[in-house]
Amino acid sequence: MKLLYSPASPYARKVLALAHERGLTGRITVATAATAPTGAAPDVTPHNPLGKVPALLLDDGTVLYDSRVICEYLDGLGDGPGLFPQGPARWDALTRQALGDGLLDAALLTRYERVLRPEAQRWAAWDAGQVAKITAALDRIEALVPAMPALDIGAVAIACALGYLDFRFPELAWREGRPASAAWYAAFSARPAMAATAPRG
Amino acid sequence: MKLLYSPASPYARKVLALAHERGLTGRITVATAATAPTGAAPDVTPHNPLGKVPALLLDDGTVLYDSRVICEYLDGLGDGPGLFPQGPARWDALTRQALGDGLLDAALLTRYERVLRPEAQRWAAWDAGQVAKITAALDRIEALVPAMPALDIGAVAIACALGYLDFRFPELAWREGRPASAAWYAAFSARPAMAATAPRG
Repeated sequence: MKLLYSPASPYARKVLALAHERGLTGRITVATAATAPTGAAPDVTPHNPLGKVPALLLDDGTVLYDSRVICEYLDGLGDGPGLFPQGPARWDALTRQALGDGLLDAALLTRYERVLRPEAQRWAAWDAGQVAKITAALDRIEALVPAMPALDIGAVAIACALGYLDFRFPELAWREGRPASAAWYAAFSARPAMAATAPRG
Repeated sequence: MKLLYSPASPYARKVLALAHERGLTGRITVATAATAPTGAAPDVTPHNPLGKVPALLLDDGTVLYDSRVICEYLDGLGDGPGLFPQGPARWDALTRQALGDGLLDAALLTRYERVLRPEAQRWAAWDAGQVAKITAALDRIEALVPAMPALDIGAVAIACALGYLDFRFPELAWREGRPASAAWYAAFSARPAMAATAPRG
């Protein structure tokens, strides 16, 4: 299998971290691919027309995307219990994954607004609206952390989201007033799967 | 169950269309809720901190989001085979769902850029980049349509995406040069589940 990847993409990190947790990295070739929301992504678009990483190229030519689909597929290739529970715990895990991914969606849009878009075309109300989503998501995470399972796809997604805020938005100081999240993240990000996939620009 | 919904949201439509297909509408109270990417969504944020619809409030107080999570949850409540296949067909269905959702992500961003954002702050390169994703996704859909299963979550997602283009981007004329998609959509959108959930502004 070949994973189209970027070391700065938190969604791609989620996939690679899951592959580490499930002991699958030896079966995956990681290929770094450039993407941008305003430009062509010639290494990616022929596989994923949305021009985004991650995308997973299977040996039979099938292409899977996006990160949620790839994570669940890879999870099923590992031995023993995986990170996508069945039964009632599934909906809690998947909703926490959606929370982490949604925080990231807002963070990426904020990053594009502040860094990619020419200064004269930036719109403060858009920036503020996305930051409000990030803040509300962080507050929800703070409330959820005490009851969060030790490891599932929701925990990985939330950790990738918090790691992205450290990487791109240190000035947001997300730990302030959120001691439970700070302590949980300190422990979770020490897992080998997270340490091996720390973001790089 | 209570579904936080908007008649203009294509993601909320996906959920309600699935509920129709699975015979579940009698068990769901639909509550219209206002959201905007730049403003508060006081009816939604207490349930989904991301401030987006759809969100599903279960009778025990649990809240599920986003549309993918809700669709899969509801699918499991219906009788008989559902729209989320197990086995090899699952990854094809989920990747087509991601394709439809990804087309919608680009279309929503284009809509916000063209309608919501003040004219002086619009950025042509952003608009062009999102339209390029829409176009590439449409071309992929045209290639996939001949082999698409009659009904699964991927088909519903793609139909909701094409319906949104009709609703908000008629000038895009997505049918031009895509006869297979046009014929497929004409048939699929006549399903009672799709007709009952046609977008309204």
